[in-house]
Amino acid sequence: MTEVKVGIIMGSQSDWPTMKEAANILDELGVPYETRIVSAHRTPDRLWDYGKSAVDRGLQVIIAGAGGAAHLPGMMASKTRLPVVGVPVQTRALSGVDSLYSIVQMPRGFPVATMAIGASGAVNAGLMAAGILALQDACLAERLDSWRAALAESIPEAPSDD
Amino acid sequence: MTEVKVGIIMGSQSDWPTMKEAANILDELGVPYETRIVSAHRTPDRLWDYGKSAVDRGLQVIIAGAGGAAHLPGMMASKTRLPVVGVPVQTRALSGVDSLYSIVQMPRGFPVATMAIGASGAVNAGLMAAGILALQDACLAERLDSWRAALAESIPEAPSDD
Amino acid sequence: MTEVKVGIIMGSQSDWPTMKEAANILDELGVPYETRIVSAHRTPDRLWDYGKSAVDRGLQVIIAGAGGAAHLPGMMASKTRLPVVGVPVQTRALSGVDSLYSIVQMPRGFPVATMAIGASGAVNAGLMAAGILALQDACLAERLDSWRAALAESIPEAPSDD
Amino acid sequence: MTEVKVGIIMGSQSDWPTMKEAANILDELGVPYETRIVSAHRTPDRLWDYGKSAVDRGLQVIIAGAGGAAHLPGMMASKTRLPVVGVPVQTRALSGVDSLYSIVQMPRGFPVATMAIGASGAVNAGLMAAGILALQDACLAERLDSWRAALAESIPEAPSDD
Amino acid sequence: MTEVKVGIIMGSQSDWPTMKEAANILDELGVPYETRIVSAHRTPDRLWDYGKSAVDRGLQVIIAGAGGAAHLPGMMASKTRLPVVGVPVQTRALSGVDSLYSIVQMPRGFPVATMAIGASGAVNAGLMAAGILALQDACLAERLDSWRAALAESIPEAPSDD
Amino acid sequence: MTEVKVGIIMGSQSDWPTMKEAANILDELGVPYETRIVSAHRTPDRLWDYGKSAVDRGLQVIIAGAGGAAHLPGMMASKTRLPVVGVPVQTRALSGVDSLYSIVQMPRGFPVATMAIGASGAVNAGLMAAGILALQDACLAERLDSWRAALAESIPEAPSDD
Amino acid sequence: MTEVKVGIIMGSQSDWPTMKEAANILDELGVPYETRIVSAHRTPDRLWDYGKSAVDRGLQVIIAGAGGAAHLPGMMASKTRLPVVGVPVQTRALSGVDSLYSIVQMPRGFPVATMAIGASGAVNAGLMAAGILALQDACLAERLDSWRAALAESIPEAPSDD
Amino acid sequence: MTEVKVGIIMGSQSDWPTMKEAANILDELGVPYETRIVSAHRTPDRLWDYGKSAVDRGLQVIIAGAGGAAHLPGMMASKTRLPVVGVPVQTRALSGVDSLYSIVQMPRGFPVATMAIGASGAVNAGLMAAGILALQDACLAERLDSWRAALAESIPEAPSDD
Repeated sequence: MTEVKVGIIMGSQSDWPTMKEAANILDELGVPYETRIVSAHRTPDRLWDYGKSAVDRGLQVIIAGAGGAAHLPGMMASKTRLPVVGVPVQTRALSGVDSLYSIVQMPRGFPVATMAIGASGAVNAGLMAAGILALQDACLAERLDSWRAALAESIPEAPSDD
Repeated sequence: MTEVKVGIIMGSQSDWPTMKEAANILDELGVPYETRIVSAHRTPDRLWDYGKSAVDRGLQVIIAGAGGAAHLPGMMASKTRLPVVGVPVQTRALSGVDSLYSIVQMPRGFPVATMAIGASGAVNAGLMAAGILALQDACLAERLDSWRAALAESIPEAPSDD
Repeated sequence: MTEVKVGIIMGSQSDWPTMKEAANILDELGVPYETRIVSAHRTPDRLWDYGKSAVDRGLQVIIAGAGGAAHLPGMMASKTRLPVVGVPVQTRALSGVDSLYSIVQMPRGFPVATMAIGASGAVNAGLMAAGILALQDACLAERLDSWRAALAESIPEAPSDD
Repeated sequence: MTEVKVGIIMGSQSDWPTMKEAANILDELGVPYETRIVSAHRTPDRLWDYGKSAVDRGLQVIIAGAGGAAHLPGMMASKTRLPVVGVPVQTRALSGVDSLYSIVQMPRGFPVATMAIGASGAVNAGLMAAGILALQDACLAERLDSWRAALAESIPEAPSDD
Repeated sequence: MTEVKVGIIMGSQSDWPTMKEAANILDELGVPYETRIVSAHRTPDRLWDYGKSAVDRGLQVIIAGAGGAAHLPGMMASKTRLPVVGVPVQTRALSGVDSLYSIVQMPRGFPVATMAIGASGAVNAGLMAAGILALQDACLAERLDSWRAALAESIPEAPSDD
Repeated sequence: MTEVKVGIIMGSQSDWPTMKEAANILDELGVPYETRIVSAHRTPDRLWDYGKSAVDRGLQVIIAGAGGAAHLPGMMASKTRLPVVGVPVQTRALSGVDSLYSIVQMPRGFPVATMAIGASGAVNAGLMAAGILALQDACLAERLDSWRAALAESIPEAPSDD
Repeated sequence: MTEVKVGIIMGSQSDWPTMKEAANILDELGVPYETRIVSAHRTPDRLWDYGKSAVDRGLQVIIAGAGGAAHLPGMMASKTRLPVVGVPVQTRALSGVDSLYSIVQMPRGFPVATMAIGASGAVNAGLMAAGILALQDACLAERLDSWRAALAESIPEAPSDD
Repeated sequence: MTEVKVGIIMGSQSDWPTMKEAANILDELGVPYETRIVSAHRTPDRLWDYGKSAVDRGLQVIIAGAGGAAHLPGMMASKTRLPVVGVPVQTRALSGVDSLYSIVQMPRGFPVATMAIGASGAVNAGLMAAGILALQDACLAERLDSWRAALAESIPEAPSDD
């Protein structure tokens, strides 16, 4: 049985359209993951348990997406020493600048590896997780190298009108 | 013995110069309070305990100050139904806009009564706490009215050069 | 007859789609309220009268929503010692950052308990009012606790695609 | 006796270092004025009286400076049809962007002639007042033209190192 | 024949949907005006001529709307001592913050009476012009007072759902 | 006699400490230039003349620095087809964001080659001018290449503590 | 055969709708150009080669458009002394402010001639390139003058409702 | 001999006061590292070489600090699949918001694990690197846990006045 190495968590169901981009790229790279809704405010005990058990459960990276006063990534970073990758979800009024500041401006002691706002950030969170895992997994490193090479090769020489 | 009704909490010792403005105004209005350092990230269990026991300990309002990815006020609001008043502490790079967004942009379910950035906000946090307590305390209501009247009377008719 | 404890006021009819979220949550929690249009600029005398009579009429909390140069919450705070909860309504050009700054950056002496921009903020304004009233009303406290518990329980374990 | 045509009002004594720039330029142009501290929040009745009596007292322009949630200019505009010129005073955390948004983003019906943030804005408020009064005062118009001509003439051809 | 007292100028045809709000309110108040396209960059000589001849042609107020690097209001203020009222037109990328800063942040010597971003600002520009003209025109003052009273009276007591 | 190819203009003497960085780099690269104070608002006719005569005088690039509602670069671009390089001077309240937006957000038809805010931008304005002139001047191209090579070589391998 | 003088490069196919505005204006002015997709991150070697060979290939100006962490213009400026004109492409979350800052805030040594965000900026990038080339091409200078004159003449005297 | 696992690179010597905070925390945690100045613009070939050889040299994490149009972290991420941690250095005019946007807003394919602006971000970059290495190093994991525990224990119960 494949062991889950990456936990993708998010503050609410509404973050899923963004965060499934992280899941898709992990699928593409063959990295096993789990997805959970863990709300820092609505289910703080779930956050506690998830953070406290993460190392023992064999997780290696946690990807956390949230919007607005996005406390989930930072609170998770306070509960586990595992690398936490944060995805600022785009918001209605402030376009995700609120999410970005709430995630990236962490105090000394609790880093969150912050990605770009929105879907690009979620894809990159998956790639960051893969890059971390690839340090211990030569096959994944090769798949990641291939993915990057294919990305480069997919770029046409010149723009086209259609 | 006077029962403590207001808890003034802050993320670190460095928030105290700002937050003691809240303490000072409560002193002035004769409202008993306690002060605690409760870091959302460094002492999350302390935050949990403080929030969970707040109602039973007889607290009625919690004033929480924090800067940067200021998670303390919002996390406290998730642990107790008591009114939480948030003070965004001014920060070096982003002047407290990060603190403000992290505190005010709370999701449905967990209000934080957000005040102005910095010292003015801390004073007003004390006044907001007093205004809430005054709903059940006619003497405090009177003291608050007097304080407000005195403030109005202290304004000179015209500006002076020295 | 049930006494009205909360006044929901707003600068114009156009704020109602946002502010009725505050009314809805108060309905859900069984908190009696009234709704009024009180424009700081167009009906300043109405603002004066509302503020001056609020305590005597038995109001305990005033929720005030406004957009742009949103003076209503702050002006109301200058006319009454009752807690004023401010809701920054989202605006067209500046997305409610103008409303937020105009409401939250109050000077020493006149706190406005500022909520998030838009509908989430309006819901939370209702919850903040309920939290304040619950300090004197054990039944409401219980209803609020139940509402919060139900919110936590409503969160599924994992996100779903539909 | 010279009739006062311009009222320079400000939210507090701390605005005077900025606002006296408006007074200085009016002195220079020979425009009589008065200075008052009128706080929208601390002395709302004074604001009411000032606004309501302004036309009858012969005022023609009101210059209002304020910082933060700067409600004074807009509230004055709601109490009088006289042109109100607003000066956003620079603030500590938000550098006057809060003042600017609170003053300029007025709703339909109540214009405030907003100037630049800080001292330049105060000088220009005086010049705007003079320009308005000059429409009815040929001598003032001439003095204003001379002041503008002198300003242009004062500009050297090239920059110098000392 | 009615003399034109107000010039409404704008940087391009695309500003007209915004700026006709200024024209509409002047129509409503019976203030004669003219409308012109005067581009600071595309027709600088037209700007020069308009500014230089404005006083002699009997204009008393110039309303100037522009978007982006909105130089029109400020350049007009450099060419005439007449009061210039600036309207920041909303832009696509920066929502009019660029227009606002370009118009309001004028240096000492050249005030532009800046209004809110977009249509509300255009309406208010018309009202500001009327307020300035009303200083010399008792009938207009009365019409303006009536307009303001009607605006206040039009506000319903309470919001309605439809 | 060496022909002046670059005009360095600025809105006021106070821009000189920033703009002399452009002059210094041109000195270093052996590019002859002139310096002028040309205020868009205070000396608009000087701006007109400068722009209108620039081509005939043999100028090839104009470097224009200004702060706040920084109209000088854009207005110069409307008066001449010569490349105009704009330098946003840092300002007190808005740190040069106002200058940047006023300079860079030019409408179709009138490009301004905008540089970074402040001194770095002024240096780069000089380098941009040199790069443009180097297209026709092989010796300058060589000097510019050398300057760039020296810059690269000046970078130590590792940081040092003193 | 006409020699290509201008290279229009962009970070991805998705930038083409913006960047073809630059191509269109160069077509209109009769300036030969080439278009390429050169991604700073996905095809860094292509960027290297393009930059290193640009002078030898006879290019005189490079127009580079990119969005988000828009590294293309600045990296190209580090690889060639040719003038690089940067176009900040509008982005979803941050509207192109991220693109603008990433392009314009270049350090000493590597200027990028930054244009307005979006399509207007792309048009102006073409005009800036034409203006630079016109320094050595009297016919192009004449065509550019004509284009500018036609632009000025196309502005109607007054706005119209349809 | 201890193998270097972390490369700390920065755009210039002036970034060192910020970036040595990363070095200090790695010293404290016993993680071997190297420090290099690698300027994306001034020494692009050095960047290329560093990125291309990083895996083979046994590096596991690269910490990259830069300010302004901070291209270094993102360009490094394009040259290696190793995790890149980015530190936005605070800047003079824009306080590091430019650095933050340039680093965090990376396109799909090239994640940069972005930290807070300034010194806190540099400390956290070191901790993030340690957290990644601890996945393969039980002793480091223990040291990291101890460091985190000590941090929590260092927080006093209450604030003190001196």
